[in-house]
Amino acid sequence: MPSLGHLAAAALLLVLGPSAPAAAARPIVVGKPSPSDATATARWLAAQNTWGVISTISIDLSGAPFGNVVSYSDGLPGEGRGIPYFYLTTLDPTARDALEDERASFTLSEFPLGTCGKIDPENPTCAKLTLTGKLKLVDLQSSEAELAKSALFTKHPEMKDWPENHHFKIFKLEIENIFLIDWFGGAKPISPSQYLEFRNQGSVMSTSE
Amino acid sequence: MPSLGHLAAAALLLVLGPSAPAAAARPIVVGKPSPSDATATARWLAAQNTWGVISTISIDLSGAPFGNVVSYSDGLPGEGRGIPYFYLTTLDPTARDALEDERASFTLSEFPLGTCGKIDPENPTCAKLTLTGKLKLVDLQSSEAELAKSALFTKHPEMKDWPENHHFKIFKLEIENIFLIDWFGGAKPISPSQYLEFRNQGSVMSTSE
Repeated sequence: MPSLGHLAAAALLLVLGPSAPAAAARPIVVGKPSPSDATATARWLAAQNTWGVISTISIDLSGAPFGNVVSYSDGLPGEGRGIPYFYLTTLDPTARDALEDERASFTLSEFPLGTCGKIDPENPTCAKLTLTGKLKLVDLQSSEAELAKSALFTKHPEMKDWPENHHFKIFKLEIENIFLIDWFGGAKPISPSQYLEFRNQGSVMSTSE
Repeated sequence: MPSLGHLAAAALLLVLGPSAPAAAARPIVVGKPSPSDATATARWLAAQNTWGVISTISIDLSGAPFGNVVSYSDGLPGEGRGIPYFYLTTLDPTARDALEDERASFTLSEFPLGTCGKIDPENPTCAKLTLTGKLKLVDLQSSEAELAKSALFTKHPEMKDWPENHHFKIFKLEIENIFLIDWFGGAKPISPSQYLEFRNQGSVMSTSE
């Protein structure tokens, strides 16, 4: 007769599989840029996170701002371009809101990456990024949609098995404003073109620095 | 007789809960309620998380919805009441926005608690909570302010040392609408009074079930 402990362990294996309890969609975090390099930090946050909060103007709640947890990808690992792509269904209010009023923001925190150490999530040195702009449908026939799908399905493998009859569509945020806090002294000014044209030149903090 | 599913979930919690990667303000996660108990799940998310995203109507961005990462507390550990309290300065846009237009939402995810396992952050079984209502200043002379301060400073010890000349003030979200996803089939209906009056009656999954 197996004990409760044995059953629990067996059940655990069924759930987790034989591999370690590494959470899905939890990124392997690579070097945080120096806080003096705001653009690199913003792009690093976008590349390393796998989920965030989209805020829209809510239809259901008479125009109140409505934040919703979503997964996203800005590209294949190591090849992020900074533009967040989403896989959304109009069964969810966020996609419905965006089709009515495309103004939206997308918010990310450094805290879930684990690199803030003992610092509080609200401490300005624990970085925060809010991208504001327009949440738009990506034409499924475009080459951008192919890239976006590959970016999303690589970081979020279960998405490709999500129910077809939920009619998931690809959305992207067209970025018009960037709000980054990564140190004391208020938000850092970064223009959308600085952000989008940034190419990583190895300005990360490392043990050799 | 406990089902295999319950055992697996309980075992999962045993493994992932207390041993989740240590970081400040990362809670010690205690038993996730059954997904069939929506109110308990919503209150659990509010009690266990330590940070989330407040969405406001942005003054700086001409009325666009603006999400911002903030720390919060709904009470002393084990004594949460469900109302999120915040410690904000008008040096930051969120507090300024709220003083102009108090409509706001506050969004939390189960994902950073570590209890979603290999499930994607957007998967409906990885719970998400959005509280929508009015973001209001709490009168610093009130007994509520005393409670809120104690709730905040206990979960976020560094707050009490934040600079006085930044004029941090206590805000709270007066909850008018609750959006909870914790399973397939769309958002669960929970009224603010159901949520606020909920008292934990041990409906959590545990090894004793």
